[in-house]
Amino acid sequence: MPHILVDKDLPGIRALLAFSPRTAEPMGVLAEALLRTSNGLAPAERELIATYVSHLNQCFYCDVSHGEIARCYLKGDGELVDEVRKGPDAAAIPEKLKTLLNIAGKVQKGGKYVTAEDVSAAKEAGATDADIHDTVLIAAAFCMFNRYVDGLAANTPADLASYEKRAAQVAEHGYGNHIYTTPQPV
Amino acid sequence: MPHILVDKDLPGIRALLAFSPRTAEPMGVLAEALLRTSNGLAPAERELIATYVSHLNQCFYCDVSHGEIARCYLKGDGELVDEVRKGPDAAAIPEKLKTLLNIAGKVQKGGKYVTAEDVSAAKEAGATDADIHDTVLIAAAFCMFNRYVDGLAANTPADLASYEKRAAQVAEHGYGNHIYTTPQPV
Repeated sequence: MPHILVDKDLPGIRALLAFSPRTAEPMGVLAEALLRTSNGLAPAERELIATYVSHLNQCFYCDVSHGEIARCYLKGDGELVDEVRKGPDAAAIPEKLKTLLNIAGKVQKGGKYVTAEDVSAAKEAGATDADIHDTVLIAAAFCMFNRYVDGLAANTPADLASYEKRAAQVAEHGYGNHIYTTPQPV
Repeated sequence: MPHILVDKDLPGIRALLAFSPRTAEPMGVLAEALLRTSNGLAPAERELIATYVSHLNQCFYCDVSHGEIARCYLKGDGELVDEVRKGPDAAAIPEKLKTLLNIAGKVQKGGKYVTAEDVSAAKEAGATDADIHDTVLIAAAFCMFNRYVDGLAANTPADLASYEKRAAQVAEHGYGNHIYTTPQPV
């Protein structure tokens, strides 16, 4: 049960966003700016970083939600998403993405864990300064989103099919206000 | 030295915000919405929560910056800020703020550390649902800001007087774009 009185018909972060529209608005804009752009990293790569960090933070709601969105972008390849969750090193992904996921994993523990060597490895694999910036900020932002969801004990639907339906909506329409102002997909 | 090429004349998070204005804008709006309102918790209380979480995350730049802003609101009472850093239980602050700082400290470790008992204690001390919401989100947001600053190894001025000058500007003018588009105070 959530720690505060929120709309019980809205799952996860959506109930919290509806509780506080004033903070929800910039959080939606930030998610959109970080996750729904192809400037540098692709949306699928961005969602894999979000999924990996949420998985490390053991935030079931964000882990499943963003894993499903990544899977939408990956044309249904859920195995790849699971491989990333298990650890990027053994996943069938390009070296550049492995080095960025390594940085994201360090950020999840704390900013100071990122070393100059981690960053050099990413640059050698082809990452730009903007890629490194976005990776660190996506990982940092999910350390916020995950704590927001679990720190207020938001409702977490166990029905995995509902995440898949919602993911298709987000992949198509993004992280605008509709994610907490429109009803659940049927 | 920062991990990416940023304006070396801007300190801390301000150089990162200038590097990425598209993400800076919602981060500024979020900081403003969370820290510069008297709706429920006072700005001084909000900055003390930000300072405490930044201190626990050992983010020197955010710890000193927000501690100085709190001190502005507290009419120069830096001792109180230091007491909060050392641990809210022994600080000369109201019971409600102690219980909220306890929740913030749990969020810093991870969202799941917040218990129903922590929340009950805050409610018994007079905290509203909105106070608890804002406390969790301020703590979560500083887990983002701190990781952003340290994950990219932003420049951290050692000169404490510069933080004091900047704090006075933020306390007066807030967290708008000017924090990365205007020069340092002389």
